[in-house]
Amino acid sequence: MPGKVDASLSSLSFSLNEPRAALPFFNLHCVCFCWIGFASKMMSTVHQLQCSDPVPSDVEIAQSAKPHPIHRVAEAFGILSSELNPYGSTRAKVKTSILMRLQNSPPGKYVVVAGMNPTPLGEGKSTTTIGLAQSLCAHLHRPAFACIRQPSQGPTFGIKGGAAGGGYSQVIPMDEFNLHGTGDIHAITAANNLLAAAIDTRIFHECTQSDEALYRRLTAELKNFTPIMRKRLEKLGISKENPKDLTPEERSRFARLNIDPDTVSWRRVTDVNDRMLREITIGQGKDEKGLTRKTGFDISVASELMAILALSKDLTDMRARFGAIVVAKSVSGELITAEDIGCAGAMAALMRDAIEPTLMQTLEGTPVLVHAGPFGNIAHGNSSIIADQIGLLLAGPNGFVLTEAGFGADIGCEKFFNIKCRTSGLKPDAAVVVATVRALKFHGGVEPSKAGIENVEALREGCSNLIRHILNIHKFGIPVIVSLNHFATDTPAELELVKELVRGATGAFDVVVSKHWAKGGAGAVELAEAVIRATQNVKANFRMLYLDTDSLKTKIEKICKEIYGAAGVEYLNDTAEKLEEFERRGYGSFPICMAKTQYSFSHDPSLKGAPTGFIVPIRDVRVNCGARFVFPFLGDISTMPGLPTRPAFYGIDIDGETGVITGLS
Amino acid sequence: MPGKVDASLSSLSFSLNEPRAALPFFNLHCVCFCWIGFASKMMSTVHQLQCSDPVPSDVEIAQSAKPHPIHRVAEAFGILSSELNPYGSTRAKVKTSILMRLQNSPPGKYVVVAGMNPTPLGEGKSTTTIGLAQSLCAHLHRPAFACIRQPSQGPTFGIKGGAAGGGYSQVIPMDEFNLHGTGDIHAITAANNLLAAAIDTRIFHECTQSDEALYRRLTAELKNFTPIMRKRLEKLGISKENPKDLTPEERSRFARLNIDPDTVSWRRVTDVNDRMLREITIGQGKDEKGLTRKTGFDISVASELMAILALSKDLTDMRARFGAIVVAKSVSGELITAEDIGCAGAMAALMRDAIEPTLMQTLEGTPVLVHAGPFGNIAHGNSSIIADQIGLLLAGPNGFVLTEAGFGADIGCEKFFNIKCRTSGLKPDAAVVVATVRALKFHGGVEPSKAGIENVEALREGCSNLIRHILNIHKFGIPVIVSLNHFATDTPAELELVKELVRGATGAFDVVVSKHWAKGGAGAVELAEAVIRATQNVKANFRMLYLDTDSLKTKIEKICKEIYGAAGVEYLNDTAEKLEEFERRGYGSFPICMAKTQYSFSHDPSLKGAPTGFIVPIRDVRVNCGARFVFPFLGDISTMPGLPTRPAFYGIDIDGETGVITGLS
Repeated sequence: MPGKVDASLSSLSFSLNEPRAALPFFNLHCVCFCWIGFASKMMSTVHQLQCSDPVPSDVEIAQSAKPHPIHRVAEAFGILSSELNPYGSTRAKVKTSILMRLQNSPPGKYVVVAGMNPTPLGEGKSTTTIGLAQSLCAHLHRPAFACIRQPSQGPTFGIKGGAAGGGYSQVIPMDEFNLHGTGDIHAITAANNLLAAAIDTRIFHECTQSDEALYRRLTAELKNFTPIMRKRLEKLGISKENPKDLTPEERSRFARLNIDPDTVSWRRVTDVNDRMLREITIGQGKDEKGLTRKTGFDISVASELMAILALSKDLTDMRARFGAIVVAKSVSGELITAEDIGCAGAMAALMRDAIEPTLMQTLEGTPVLVHAGPFGNIAHGNSSIIADQIGLLLAGPNGFVLTEAGFGADIGCEKFFNIKCRTSGLKPDAAVVVATVRALKFHGGVEPSKAGIENVEALREGCSNLIRHILNIHKFGIPVIVSLNHFATDTPAELELVKELVRGATGAFDVVVSKHWAKGGAGAVELAEAVIRATQNVKANFRMLYLDTDSLKTKIEKICKEIYGAAGVEYLNDTAEKLEEFERRGYGSFPICMAKTQYSFSHDPSLKGAPTGFIVPIRDVRVNCGARFVFPFLGDISTMPGLPTRPAFYGIDIDGETGVITGLS
Repeated sequence: MPGKVDASLSSLSFSLNEPRAALPFFNLHCVCFCWIGFASKMMSTVHQLQCSDPVPSDVEIAQSAKPHPIHRVAEAFGILSSELNPYGSTRAKVKTSILMRLQNSPPGKYVVVAGMNPTPLGEGKSTTTIGLAQSLCAHLHRPAFACIRQPSQGPTFGIKGGAAGGGYSQVIPMDEFNLHGTGDIHAITAANNLLAAAIDTRIFHECTQSDEALYRRLTAELKNFTPIMRKRLEKLGISKENPKDLTPEERSRFARLNIDPDTVSWRRVTDVNDRMLREITIGQGKDEKGLTRKTGFDISVASELMAILALSKDLTDMRARFGAIVVAKSVSGELITAEDIGCAGAMAALMRDAIEPTLMQTLEGTPVLVHAGPFGNIAHGNSSIIADQIGLLLAGPNGFVLTEAGFGADIGCEKFFNIKCRTSGLKPDAAVVVATVRALKFHGGVEPSKAGIENVEALREGCSNLIRHILNIHKFGIPVIVSLNHFATDTPAELELVKELVRGATGAFDVVVSKHWAKGGAGAVELAEAVIRATQNVKANFRMLYLDTDSLKTKIEKICKEIYGAAGVEYLNDTAEKLEEFERRGYGSFPICMAKTQYSFSHDPSLKGAPTGFIVPIRDVRVNCGARFVFPFLGDISTMPGLPTRPAFYGIDIDGETGVITGLS
C-alpha cells in the first residue's frame, strides 16, 4: 500500500520538471518507509485550491475557507494529541516536550525567507512564506512548516492591517491569527509591566522606610530565605539561610537596592499604537510623595521579553534570561537585575504557556507555527527558535521549515544568521529573497504612484538593491533563490530583465516569477521546485559574519561595511565608552543587533538602491542582558507607532448574531 | 415525585463512601428519568475527597489533585462537545449558543453567596461557594454550578494572593485560574486601551489638521460611508451615503469631534498593581506638539468594559453598550461616545471570545463557570449574567447555581439584586451569607491578633453586623441561610451564641456551622441540605428595593437608609446638579452602583458592627452609559491598588523542567 502511494507521488513529482528524478528509488529504500507513511497521512488535511479570477479580497477568501479542526492538521504532520493544547478548534499550542521525543530525528531543510528593502508598495514576504509552504505540501507533497511571527495588535488596528498573508496564500482563521492568538503577547505585556511596577514600587518603599523596617517587612514570618531571595544573597556573597542571622550591614545590602531613578531603563508596554504614551511623567498621585519620574511606554513587541521568548531554548533558559535582565543601576553604579527585584520567577510563571508555539493552518491545510514576534527595528525581528526546531524535527529529512526574517535582508537575514542561528546552533540550507518589479522600480527612483508603468531604466537601477542582498547572503555560505512576486502590471520585458541582471550579477541559484497570491500553492510550484533543487544540489557551507570573540566595534564595523556597504563607522556621543564598559562588564561576546531604519541599507531611509560611501553614525548603544545582544542605534527609532487619521479600526465591526468579524484586513 | 427522588438522594448522602450503592433505586422513578440520567452521568466526574488532617497548604492540595479533562466535566453536566472551545485540557470556553439550545429548559435554583462586612481575617466567601457546590454535587447528587469571578492578576502578585478558594474547596488548576484564565481580562485591557489611544490620537489629529483635510483623510477612497461612520452620521441627522455629497458644514460636524481634553473621563488600564500610574502626564514626546494631558491608569477590572461584560445578555447587546460609552464632552458640551470615535466595533471584535464563560472544575470534579469580575468598589462586583444563565439552564429544576457577590452583602448583594437581577430579569431563590466567629468578634471591637480567643461579649456585639445583612436581604423577599465557617479556635459556646442570637433576631432560615475548608464537600453537607430545604420549602417573593422610575436621589436614599442604616444623605460639591443633568440626559432610569468602602455599612471604614445615625456624604457622582448605572462616590475609592514591601511575587517561581509553578497562593 505505501508503495502505491509512493508511486503516485513520484509520478506526480516527475511531471513537475523532474526535480526528484531519484524518487523511484524510494520504493527500494525501506529506510524511507516512515516518510512515505508521513506523506500519505499528510494528504489527509492538505488540499489544493480552486482560485477565482479576479482574486477576491483577503477577508472574502479567508472567510469562505473552512479550516480543518486543528488536531487533524497536527495529527497529519506527526504531532501526538498528548502534545497539543487546543485553544478553540483552530488554534493549538504545541508542547515543547515534543522536542525531547523527536530529539534523535533527522531534521528537515531550513530555509529563511527574506526580502529586499521594503517599500510602501508591499512586496509580500509573509504571503511568499505561506504560498511556498502550500506549494511544497499540497503540490509537491513535501512536509513543510511555515514559521512566522505573531502579529502585534498595534498595526492590525493602525495603518498596516493584519499580517496573515494575502490573496490565496493566507493563514486562517485570520481573525484568530490577528487578534490575541493564544495570548502570548498579552503574557509579555503582563510580565513586562509587573516588573515595571515592581521597580517603581521598590523605589517608593525604599524612600519611605528605614533599612531595618524594609528588611523586617521583606523577611516577615520567613524561617528561611525564599529561593528567589537566595539568588540575591548569592550575588552579595552572603550564604546564610535564616533571616535572623544577617548582620545589620548585610541586612542593608540585601534590602536596599538603592536604585538611581534616573537610570531606570525598563519601560512599560502596551500592544496598542498609543503615541501619547511615548513620553510620560508618572507618580503624580497625591499618595506617591512626589516621587515623579519621566518614562514611557513601548509597543509590547518591543519588550526585551519578546526578544527573550524568541531566543530561548527552553523554560529553564527563559527563566534564567529573565533573571539577568538589567533594569537600572544603583546609586553606586551596580547593575540591578530583575532577579534583584524578586520578580523574575513570577514573570516566568506568567510566560509559561507563551513558550509553546501555536499551530495554525494555511488556506491549503498545511501547518503554520506562529511564535514570538520581536520588533525588527530594535530587536532581531525573527520568529522563535523553538518553533523552528519543532518544525525541522517534524518535517524530517524530506521536509522543510520556511522561517520568515522581518524587513529587508540587511536587517532580518543578518540578524537571523548572526543572532538567531548563533544562539540556536541551527544551520540554514538556503534563503529565499522576495522582490517585486514595482519595488525594484521604486528603488530605481520611481514614485509609488507610477510603479505600475513599464520603466526599464529605473528597474535596472533598482535591481542594485536586490543584487546586494543576494551577494550579502552568499557571504554566509548558502544559496539564494529569488521569488519575484508577480503583479498584473509587470511586463514580460521587465521580468526578463530582472532575471538576467540578477542571475548575471550574483550567480543566484534561481530567479523565479511566483504567482501564489493569485493562485495559492499552485502559483509557487516553480519557486518550490527551485528551493528543493537548491537544498538538494548545493552543499551549503553556513558561516557567521563575525566571531563571538571579535570586539564589539569589530562586529559593528563588519556589519556596516560588509552588509550595508558603508565606508566606515562613526561613534557619536559616549558610544565608544559605553562599548568599552559593556566589554568590561562581560558582554563583549554578545552579538550585535542593529537598531536601524528598514528602508535603506544605510542609516538614512532616503538612500534607496545600493548606496555606498556613507559613514554610519552610532548615536547610542544599549545592551539587553536577558536577550543577550548589544544594540547600537543608527538613528531615531520609534518603539511606539501612532495611529493615522483613519485607523484600520474604523472599518472593523462584528455581527452580533454570528460573531463574524468584518473589516479586518 | 421530586420528593421520592429526594428520599433516595438522602439515603445516598448517608452512605458517603459508596455514593452509588443506591443507584439501582433510581430506575424505579421513571418521571425523573431524565434527571436521573443526568445525575448518573454527572457522577462520572464528580468524586469525594480523602482529606488529610492537619489540612495541607492550598498549593499542596491543588497540585496533588488530578483534574479531569475538561471535556469530560462538560459532558457530565450536559454541555455538548460542539458547545465547547477548549483552552488546554483543563479550561474551556462555553459557547453562548447553548442558551438557544436550552432556552425552553426549566432552570435550576438561583442562590447568591454573600458575606458580612469583610475583615482582615478572611471569611472565605469563595471557599464557601465552591465547598457548597462540591457538597451539592458530590454528596447530595444535585447538579450544581459555582459561578465565580475571574481574578485580577493585581492581587495575585500583590497582597491578597489568588482567588481559587482554599483548603479542600478550591478551583483547579489554581495556576490556570489565577494567571490569564482564558484571556478575558487581557481582552478588556486591549479594548480599553485601544479606545484610549483612539481618543488622544483623535484630539491630536484634530489639533493639527483643517476640517477639510481631516474629512478627506477620514473618507479617503470610500465610495460609501462605512457602517460605523453611518452611526455617527445618524446621530448628526445626516442621511447621505456618499462622502462626496456632504456640505462643508456637514463635513466639519462629521469630522471634528472637538473633544475638550479636560473632560476626557476614559482612563487607560493595566492588570498590574502599579500605583505610580494612578496619576500621570502623557504626551510629553517631542513629536506630540505639546499636547500634554493629566490622566491615569486603573486596574483592568475597574474598566467599564468589565462591568459591561458582566451585564451583557449577548454579543449584540455588548456591542451596542460599547458604542454608548461616553468618553468625554465636546467643547460645546455634547457627549462624545466610543461610537463617535469609530472604535466600538473593533473593541467588540477584541472581546468576541471574552463573552463566553470559562468552564473549570473544583477539587471534587464539579463544574465552575468563571466569567467577568468587575471591581466591587466602583462597579457591581458580581460575575456575569451569561454564566449564571448557562448554569441555571444546565442545572435544571433539581439543580443549583451558586453565584458569588463580592464584598459584604451591603455592596455585593444589594448590587446583585438591584443591578444584576434587574438587568437579567432572573429571580434569586435564596441567599447564603458567610460569617465567622473571628470576624464577628472583630466587628465587636476585638483586635485581629486576639480574634482566636473566646470573647462572648464582643461576639454578641459583633453579631449586629451579620444580623443587619440578613434583615436587609429579607427586604428583597428571599430566605437567608448563614454559613458560619468553622475555625479551630471557635468554642462551642461561641458557635451556639451566634446561632441563637441570629436566628432569634432575624428569623433566618438556618444558621449552619460549615467545615468545607477542612473537609471539602463533606464538610458542607449540612449547609447544602439547608439550602435545598430553603429553596424547596420557602416560596421566595423576590422584589427590588427601588423602581426604575424612582428619581436618582430616591434610589440613593433608599439604599443609604434601608441597607446602610443611615439617617440621611448629604449631596456635596455639585453632585445634586450632576444628578439632575443625568436625568435630563435620559439616565434617570439607570440603577445606582455605590462606590463605597467594603469595611463598613457606612461610608467610614472604621464604623464596625451595625452603625446608625450617620449621614452619607455623596462626594462625586458619575455615570457609565455603556454599563448603564449611575455611581455616586461616598469617599476616596482607589481604582489602582499598590504593591506591598514584600509582594506575593517574591515567592513565585517556576520549575523549568516540569513547568510547575511554585509559591502561588
